[in-house]
Amino acid sequence: MSVEQLKDVKAVIFDVFGTVVDWRTGVSREAAAFLTRHNRQDINPDDFADCWRDFYAPAMAEVNSGRRPFVRLDILHRENLDKVLEKLGIDAAAIPHSELDELNRAWHRLDPWPDSVQGIQRLKKRFIVAPLSNGNIILMINMAKRAGLPWDAILGAEVAGIYKPMPEAYLRTADILAMRPEEICLVAAHNDDLAAARKCGLRTAFVLRPTDHGPNQKTDLCPTQEWDVIADTIDDLAAKLGT
Amino acid sequence: MSVEQLKDVKAVIFDVFGTVVDWRTGVSREAAAFLTRHNRQDINPDDFADCWRDFYAPAMAEVNSGRRPFVRLDILHRENLDKVLEKLGIDAAAIPHSELDELNRAWHRLDPWPDSVQGIQRLKKRFIVAPLSNGNIILMINMAKRAGLPWDAILGAEVAGIYKPMPEAYLRTADILAMRPEEICLVAAHNDDLAAARKCGLRTAFVLRPTDHGPNQKTDLCPTQEWDVIADTIDDLAAKLGT
Repeated sequence: MSVEQLKDVKAVIFDVFGTVVDWRTGVSREAAAFLTRHNRQDINPDDFADCWRDFYAPAMAEVNSGRRPFVRLDILHRENLDKVLEKLGIDAAAIPHSELDELNRAWHRLDPWPDSVQGIQRLKKRFIVAPLSNGNIILMINMAKRAGLPWDAILGAEVAGIYKPMPEAYLRTADILAMRPEEICLVAAHNDDLAAARKCGLRTAFVLRPTDHGPNQKTDLCPTQEWDVIADTIDDLAAKLGT
Repeated sequence: MSVEQLKDVKAVIFDVFGTVVDWRTGVSREAAAFLTRHNRQDINPDDFADCWRDFYAPAMAEVNSGRRPFVRLDILHRENLDKVLEKLGIDAAAIPHSELDELNRAWHRLDPWPDSVQGIQRLKKRFIVAPLSNGNIILMINMAKRAGLPWDAILGAEVAGIYKPMPEAYLRTADILAMRPEEICLVAAHNDDLAAARKCGLRTAFVLRPTDHGPNQKTDLCPTQEWDVIADTIDDLAAKLGT
């Protein structure tokens, strides 16, 4: 790490799913209750969560390709939930819409990793802190209120009108913050997110989340580029940035 | 007030300039320092602030009429500052751009009314709290960090892509919050803002700010409709909403 490169940073913005919160454990927990209610304990709730997540990138790609106008992630998640049920052989038509809508909001009720709240609180003293997530605004608000994430603002795909990793997602965020890209540091546990941000001129901080995708995770177990900061946790990142 | 009408409210959103912060005292304070630096103590800094504010509504009307694409308020304020200087006979060309840009950010450094922080903090325990201001996102972030305003998110004109009092400013905010209009209460010291919100179906709370426009204020000294709540301060509003 070169502190020199980071001296102009004024805003520290975060990928959220996997970096700040443990999406897989949270979704799996609510899927387990759902599967029990419907007598489908034969399905592993972790597989349910992974299956739901597998539909995530293709759904956003439809928007980013221009084939579909921007819609918020809650809507994509809800459509994808129907696909998950079909794939796992659960008859969605037999389940009340309200119950599926409630399950869809499992993504609003994810727990932070143990270091996230304290780390962001420390960073907030010196920097503007905000999510730059593909999650939509009300999802991020509900998550933050439940988890105690002390964001200064909710930025991200819905504010920018486009999903990461499209360059506009990073560049419009910089424009909204009235900052040059190098005044902004993206924090993420995913090398591809950081690579896209770096191409736009943002500073980059890698935080290792070795169980983001469960105990058998194969990806993002180490940095694939020399990111400006490499940290074990967000609290460790806060220390490395001198806060 | 009918508590019954407000039982579904989940988000309390705020007009900011005049309702949450004292724009006139803050702008006047920085104008005074500016005028002293340039040996123009003959100009009353309160008049400078009022003149700047007078150009506010016409500039937004250009956007709301469709004659101009949406631009954020910082840009309108900066253009209007040039008009203020011309009107007051100050040669803008003789002043460094950086100094004028800094003066423009006086709008980022406004002090809250004495009850605002505590009132919003109380409301935040039960409701989502956010600005629905014509001020842009970075303006609202900088103001909130300086003043300690504990917003859950920054909503408003820049997120909606249109200025109040256009209906879309309120309705797009409701859509982003995934709420019906009657689940949202707008707090404002200005009857016209509340009237526009009510037409969109939002709940309304009037807070009296008798010196918003200085000691000789003539407007908004009383509610012009039976708003759902009428309060003396935001702290009083918090009490009336049971928080």
